[in-house]
Amino acid sequence: MKKTVGIVGANGYTGSELIRLLAFHPHVTLSFLYSRSNSGTKISDLYPDLTTVCDQVLTDEFEEVDILFLCLPHKESRNWLAQNPVKDETLVIDLGNDFRLEGNFGNRNFIYGLPEINKKHFQGSKSIANAGCFATAIQLALLPLAEKGMLDEVYTTGITGSTGAGQSLQATTHFTWRNDNISAYKTLTHQHVDEILQQLVSLNNKEVTLNFVPWRGDFARGIFTSSMMKTDLKLEELEQLYQDFYAEEPFVTVSSKAVDLKQVVNTNRCVIQIEKSGNVAVVHSAIDNLLKGASGQAVQNMNIAMGWEENAGLNLKPIAF
Amino acid sequence: MKKTVGIVGANGYTGSELIRLLAFHPHVTLSFLYSRSNSGTKISDLYPDLTTVCDQVLTDEFEEVDILFLCLPHKESRNWLAQNPVKDETLVIDLGNDFRLEGNFGNRNFIYGLPEINKKHFQGSKSIANAGCFATAIQLALLPLAEKGMLDEVYTTGITGSTGAGQSLQATTHFTWRNDNISAYKTLTHQHVDEILQQLVSLNNKEVTLNFVPWRGDFARGIFTSSMMKTDLKLEELEQLYQDFYAEEPFVTVSSKAVDLKQVVNTNRCVIQIEKSGNVAVVHSAIDNLLKGASGQAVQNMNIAMGWEENAGLNLKPIAF
Amino acid sequence: MKKTVGIVGANGYTGSELIRLLAFHPHVTLSFLYSRSNSGTKISDLYPDLTTVCDQVLTDEFEEVDILFLCLPHKESRNWLAQNPVKDETLVIDLGNDFRLEGNFGNRNFIYGLPEINKKHFQGSKSIANAGCFATAIQLALLPLAEKGMLDEVYTTGITGSTGAGQSLQATTHFTWRNDNISAYKTLTHQHVDEILQQLVSLNNKEVTLNFVPWRGDFARGIFTSSMMKTDLKLEELEQLYQDFYAEEPFVTVSSKAVDLKQVVNTNRCVIQIEKSGNVAVVHSAIDNLLKGASGQAVQNMNIAMGWEENAGLNLKPIAF
Amino acid sequence: MKKTVGIVGANGYTGSELIRLLAFHPHVTLSFLYSRSNSGTKISDLYPDLTTVCDQVLTDEFEEVDILFLCLPHKESRNWLAQNPVKDETLVIDLGNDFRLEGNFGNRNFIYGLPEINKKHFQGSKSIANAGCFATAIQLALLPLAEKGMLDEVYTTGITGSTGAGQSLQATTHFTWRNDNISAYKTLTHQHVDEILQQLVSLNNKEVTLNFVPWRGDFARGIFTSSMMKTDLKLEELEQLYQDFYAEEPFVTVSSKAVDLKQVVNTNRCVIQIEKSGNVAVVHSAIDNLLKGASGQAVQNMNIAMGWEENAGLNLKPIAF
Repeated sequence: MKKTVGIVGANGYTGSELIRLLAFHPHVTLSFLYSRSNSGTKISDLYPDLTTVCDQVLTDEFEEVDILFLCLPHKESRNWLAQNPVKDETLVIDLGNDFRLEGNFGNRNFIYGLPEINKKHFQGSKSIANAGCFATAIQLALLPLAEKGMLDEVYTTGITGSTGAGQSLQATTHFTWRNDNISAYKTLTHQHVDEILQQLVSLNNKEVTLNFVPWRGDFARGIFTSSMMKTDLKLEELEQLYQDFYAEEPFVTVSSKAVDLKQVVNTNRCVIQIEKSGNVAVVHSAIDNLLKGASGQAVQNMNIAMGWEENAGLNLKPIAF
Repeated sequence: MKKTVGIVGANGYTGSELIRLLAFHPHVTLSFLYSRSNSGTKISDLYPDLTTVCDQVLTDEFEEVDILFLCLPHKESRNWLAQNPVKDETLVIDLGNDFRLEGNFGNRNFIYGLPEINKKHFQGSKSIANAGCFATAIQLALLPLAEKGMLDEVYTTGITGSTGAGQSLQATTHFTWRNDNISAYKTLTHQHVDEILQQLVSLNNKEVTLNFVPWRGDFARGIFTSSMMKTDLKLEELEQLYQDFYAEEPFVTVSSKAVDLKQVVNTNRCVIQIEKSGNVAVVHSAIDNLLKGASGQAVQNMNIAMGWEENAGLNLKPIAF
Repeated sequence: MKKTVGIVGANGYTGSELIRLLAFHPHVTLSFLYSRSNSGTKISDLYPDLTTVCDQVLTDEFEEVDILFLCLPHKESRNWLAQNPVKDETLVIDLGNDFRLEGNFGNRNFIYGLPEINKKHFQGSKSIANAGCFATAIQLALLPLAEKGMLDEVYTTGITGSTGAGQSLQATTHFTWRNDNISAYKTLTHQHVDEILQQLVSLNNKEVTLNFVPWRGDFARGIFTSSMMKTDLKLEELEQLYQDFYAEEPFVTVSSKAVDLKQVVNTNRCVIQIEKSGNVAVVHSAIDNLLKGASGQAVQNMNIAMGWEENAGLNLKPIAF
Repeated sequence: MKKTVGIVGANGYTGSELIRLLAFHPHVTLSFLYSRSNSGTKISDLYPDLTTVCDQVLTDEFEEVDILFLCLPHKESRNWLAQNPVKDETLVIDLGNDFRLEGNFGNRNFIYGLPEINKKHFQGSKSIANAGCFATAIQLALLPLAEKGMLDEVYTTGITGSTGAGQSLQATTHFTWRNDNISAYKTLTHQHVDEILQQLVSLNNKEVTLNFVPWRGDFARGIFTSSMMKTDLKLEELEQLYQDFYAEEPFVTVSSKAVDLKQVVNTNRCVIQIEKSGNVAVVHSAIDNLLKGASGQAVQNMNIAMGWEENAGLNLKPIAF
């Protein structure tokens, strides 16, 4: 029998993207789509691409479900959980950043939801704090080195699509401004750095420095990052290390060929390429920020926690062009 | 047991898009991917988004299959069929324009492959000439009126993405030129007009005039068309006529709200909206040119011809953003 | 000696574009930049591209000038003029639509500001109602036929960049939505139709029907229109008619080659191409909506009214790519 | 009297951009536009935006001029100069990379053409090797530190528009591929690194390491770079250092506000912003690759060499939107 699912904050980008994924998922059925601001509206009126895919009406009433996704603005998940009667048996996956650094909340202890680190702890878990989008792209680029204790100082530049900024209207998401434009923001101070370092340092067993410059890109979906660092490993050794680390991971590919963003857009995949010159290595990684960087990863985490095949509902047709 | 499929011209845009669809189709298995020019190359080396989805090697050897898709440049399908031993029992779906106007070829008689017209003739058929991309968008916008004999003179403007021009490098597909640019081409002389009129006149039972101006758009995927015509029907009558006509069609939606192209990109859907002022009606229609306008429709046609559920393999996550 | 200029509504797109043009104009000097909402702010803080070009501070105080441009939201120009002491000798050029259909206002009588129609009336005039953006593109495509009384029924589709929607944040100017997207709006009901018909009918000396479908494009600047109509004139005759009509116009080119939008972006030019098949002619026209469609035309109108060379300050480097 | 100018390779992007600039330059007249491959063609047939701006016919015959610009593919300038009778008195400005690292050629000694370094040597010079596009953006971001001997190890990521790849048709300039896409290329091995280091080391008086990852962007014009480095200087000290260094430079602005690419597109300006966190500084710089990164800088260099005002012909209207 299919498991019941509720999505809180279903009217946002990550919420609606979850609907697109779960509408065709073989093991779940959508029980309720929660939105305080759009209660009473059909989700397909907000997102007409969902017409015929999901025509449910948004509600502001909670009901019991097997699996609950929280797609709220950052800092609102704790309040929501405190105010709504979610049973301990319900699997809660939070897509915000409320529980990534500090997972304790009442009877719950949220596990950091990057499956390539924590997969073994997911099965049977009831609380997962989905990793952030830049955090996913950058960690996947660095994990194999961290696991060997080889990370020291990293210089990363990353670029993100406009969906990363959410659906609110802002000067930096105005088409007239953003089209054909590039800009930096939160230079060296992006909120994901803490989340990344907490994981990497724990694996690396010594200090890691991450200097991260995020850029806004003139496209809607995707994250592309290039991380530079010094290393004595040869390119072949690096590639082998990464190949081995990700050998069993269905959604991470280590490529010896040039990576471009559209290889992964509209998929749950991450593609990584390593290059080397002198004593400096560069690791490129690309993900779809709304999928592997958010809603797709949430489904992947759910699949693992529920004991289902990891790619259930995630065999997505790439946009490719 | 799954049916075997071969794709001829698998290295092009429509061929590779078929692979993206069929790799996850529940009833078929890919037997061979044929390409003369890229024989010996892994398809995922040409299209890295296919890595882990399909890593087959392109071949120039034909083998027997249950279903054969021809994704060749226009005018090459006849030659290919003449030179290769395709059995009469094989379902052949041609995505080129070789058999759209004249379907006879040896023992075969190709049926025009727009399911919303000819679906009833598909089941058991072995030869289908898939409709063209603009032809699909424009016919779906006009069919309900044609069926009532109400079409007379139509003025249509349509815009298409760069994938419509194929993968060859041309001045008009150079990024530097096409980005932020709009241009008209084949004004009043687009090759799809004949194909459209052949179908519409047959339904309409009297002459139809279609004045069609195609534009090149600065995006990769999709077709959006607006067709103007005089009619005495009120808006409500038009909407009812269209609603009734498409009531049983899983991939055509008649919307009373504003249509935009991205409602259908990366799906097999067509969305139609009608507006009216004075005695002039405007019908907008939007499709993904590579899906409902080509490879998706080919899969839909296959599903019907094989007696499978019409949307098998076509429950696609929209790109949406 | 240079003439003094004031810009009211200098903080908007057309206002700031006027600054870009007038900062390097040989015959004028910017006296004041008026903005109620941004008074006290440096214009180059709102538009950093103006840094070193114009670093004036916006003000909400009016002072006397020789030339006054009104760049206010539609319907606000009348109020502003009523409330501020603009002398009769001041040349007022309104970029809104307040005076296009009805030009009388106190002692002033605004002339419709499309120089290719009304240039002869500009010199010495003190009140000009600048033509609208779509109105400019469509009229320039139809004027030669109207002047011969040959216009009857016209079917026009036009596409506009996001700057046409102004700087306010709207769902339809959100980058995530608009990127790679096409949509229709104000189908058959665009406000410029009245303005266009008032001029065309006056020239044509008989009724004209204009069926106009505007589209939103996924680019920031420019308008491209295609107008279809029946005519007995041969292509050569049409081209000759247009060549003759525009022979003395410095900013209108009749091209026998394919027109694309970027031929005119960041210039004050309009390029027109005519095609014909059977008894149907199609006239394409392209302009930059902020220049020939707004601020550039305003400068052109000023130049004529002041008796200066028509292209003063308008020898602009095209963006081209 | 105006000076005569010839452009060799006038049919390429940088050549045509020079025409756009020089057509309105107050002190020069275009004598000949040289192109072997397009000899006999009107330049405005290749670049229709030049219609009415410049309708000259391309030629393959050299004639004497006062000023000669070479806009040839890299490595062809030496051959061309060897085969054509250019007098010693002619000012030659090479936009290729033939003379940037090694300037001696016959009687000529090419000076590296970045005016912010070498301006003082230009006046009266007859041979200038125009700086490369990425080289300009990166050097302008680092010069003030180099001049103080404070450069050590720099990590730079830069993104460039498609015009940087020239007009030839390539897989990476196909619109279908490049639209909405990001990719890295020539990681740590870009040809401009040598040119940059030659200048920086000379100023810095000690070794400099530049780790540079170039990205391809999904826009046509512009370069945006972010350079990370360790420094003990405080942000205020850095800003002061940069302000002082560029105090007299008309085309370089040091901004304390966020920089975005479109602040400089279609201008000859470079905008720089510095940010600091901990001991790491990040310097962002933005230019138009075809203007300050190529043809605009060539005009600037010409102006200085000829003793004209530095901004002659370079008061360009920004595209802004």
